[in-house]
Amino acid sequence: MNSRLIANYRVRAEANAIEERARGLAVEQSVEMPVSAIREAAIIEEIVGEVARIEDRGDGWFDVDVALASATIGGDAGQLLNMLYGNSSLQEDIVLADFSLPYDLLARFGGPRQGLRGLRRRAGADRRALTCSALKPQGLSARSLSELAFEFARGGVDFVKDDHGLADQDYSPFDERAPACARAMRRAEEITGRRTHYAPSLSGHFGQMQRQIETARAEGISVVMIAPMIAGVSTLQALSHANPDIAFFAHPTMAGAARISPAAYARLFRLCGADAVIFPNYGGRFGYSPATCRALAGALREGRGGILTSVPAPAGGMTLARVPEILDFYGPDTILLIGGALLAAEKDNLAAETARFARAVAEHDFGARG
Amino acid sequence: MNSRLIANYRVRAEANAIEERARGLAVEQSVEMPVSAIREAAIIEEIVGEVARIEDRGDGWFDVDVALASATIGGDAGQLLNMLYGNSSLQEDIVLADFSLPYDLLARFGGPRQGLRGLRRRAGADRRALTCSALKPQGLSARSLSELAFEFARGGVDFVKDDHGLADQDYSPFDERAPACARAMRRAEEITGRRTHYAPSLSGHFGQMQRQIETARAEGISVVMIAPMIAGVSTLQALSHANPDIAFFAHPTMAGAARISPAAYARLFRLCGADAVIFPNYGGRFGYSPATCRALAGALREGRGGILTSVPAPAGGMTLARVPEILDFYGPDTILLIGGALLAAEKDNLAAETARFARAVAEHDFGARG
Repeated sequence: MNSRLIANYRVRAEANAIEERARGLAVEQSVEMPVSAIREAAIIEEIVGEVARIEDRGDGWFDVDVALASATIGGDAGQLLNMLYGNSSLQEDIVLADFSLPYDLLARFGGPRQGLRGLRRRAGADRRALTCSALKPQGLSARSLSELAFEFARGGVDFVKDDHGLADQDYSPFDERAPACARAMRRAEEITGRRTHYAPSLSGHFGQMQRQIETARAEGISVVMIAPMIAGVSTLQALSHANPDIAFFAHPTMAGAARISPAAYARLFRLCGADAVIFPNYGGRFGYSPATCRALAGALREGRGGILTSVPAPAGGMTLARVPEILDFYGPDTILLIGGALLAAEKDNLAAETARFARAVAEHDFGARG
Repeated sequence: MNSRLIANYRVRAEANAIEERARGLAVEQSVEMPVSAIREAAIIEEIVGEVARIEDRGDGWFDVDVALASATIGGDAGQLLNMLYGNSSLQEDIVLADFSLPYDLLARFGGPRQGLRGLRRRAGADRRALTCSALKPQGLSARSLSELAFEFARGGVDFVKDDHGLADQDYSPFDERAPACARAMRRAEEITGRRTHYAPSLSGHFGQMQRQIETARAEGISVVMIAPMIAGVSTLQALSHANPDIAFFAHPTMAGAARISPAAYARLFRLCGADAVIFPNYGGRFGYSPATCRALAGALREGRGGILTSVPAPAGGMTLARVPEILDFYGPDTILLIGGALLAAEKDNLAAETARFARAVAEHDFGARG
């Protein structure tokens, strides 16, 4: 058999119908036409998807693995997503649970350029977990956001990212916000002696984002945030390829969990070059379970094909009190992201509250629980 | 109140919890932080989302309308999607049912540049419905695909589009496929005396797609296909803006129906410039109901704010036998798309089978059923 990737699906079906449904799925995600109407033997042999496994989960759902031809992907991330789940996303009985690429295809995707090591180097932290906070709310001016960024930096957090809702709005245009926040980082560094890294949120299409990166780089910024399911995964892929000196945080907005598993999304973002992947932590205001979070972190860290690991960045309604528990769960190769809970402090206390967060992370004893 | 758009959601909740859940949704889709921690009165007044309506649907689900500030969108389609559904896509109890924009925001989106009129002009058809077929399967060479395109054109179909799985693969690179199919259109025109329009499928990021459009234009191609949920809606928006002479077919791949209603997707694609929107017809191999299809077609045709109408293009497992019923359902301002069912004909019969399709559409009497 020629080179194939494996897509892992969950399919809802009656037991006596699953084989036909699985074959239909394999056709939908490959040639998308009646196989009987295909006249070329090579296409039937090399291109039509093949059902590699069917297993009854016992709850009306089946695990179905389909082997898809690597040749249908080329090296484009959008086309990978299209082949993995495109038309099947329109059907309600199919979930994309995960996927794995053969080495030849893996080699065509760059994966992270900076990865854990590049983020640790920026933070000046070899072993401890990393910290991050978020600038909000929408509607603040560039100046007000930069003042918040200054307080976070004074408090000693490693990264400060834009809220994913900050785009290029009139009240806070990218070209004002990014330089203002970069200046705030430099000002804070003069006081604290260490650099906090500001990650502005990119928006628009590839060309606009590339210009935003150039504006950011000119200000000494070396980390940015992107929402791959809105920008398009090919956009992340191309930006990461064109800017290997920049670290990319991937934001999960629009990566609806219900139909594509969070682990599959995380794996895709890593393939496209995300150096860190933000996701909703268990026990916050989103419904992810600890098992889902563990699988997601695993997809980012798993050693495969020489691709760098990316860093899990659990977020979403986290609090200072939970820091030890979360660190024990994820271990040190993690970025902890607390936004709203810090911002709830009075502004005069923001730096102090941030410092408590940074300290709790820095001083956590991973030995305590093993 | 300043300018607001309305997002229509369905939310699953207990009756005694819905008000709080709706407020939480309005916050998640706007400032995404505790409102109590916001100190600026202007942000609370002008930026925080407002619950405009809650209505019990009686099945454990509620209709919830949220008024979101237009200022948070700017004019970027990606940011519109982000604000409509971004983080809420991560929660399992919320569906985006539809949305409507105020006129000032509508004016910032171009909508279709060609629309129904531009597509009718290309087809040389003032009143009848339009026809389209699709080139498949994946794995065929550019040459083989162009031979199929030639047969479709000989048969007299108005448009021939690439299968959405055709990207820029080694076995059929865009730069070979598009010119080869364009030549096939010209050859067929010499025989039939009328031009069939070939719509190649774009892939990659904005820059790559723009180059593909330039290649296509140099070959006399004036219609292309794009998958906005893979390319990114901002990419479609920018391409449509930069190429007002080109008509865009939007393909629904990855526009999973379960969590965003098909009508909302269609409305978004139209806003971004899609001149025709392909979608799975009822009674085919996807689960859309007639009511869903009617709502979707309505969203494309509805007259609002001076934006051109787009053309519904029902597809997905359609057959010749169903042409009259489908035409009666959608009316003449429609593109009928039949792919696999034509390709199932022997190659020698492909042009004749296509001609039957074109004739059935051209000769349909809309008066028959009123």
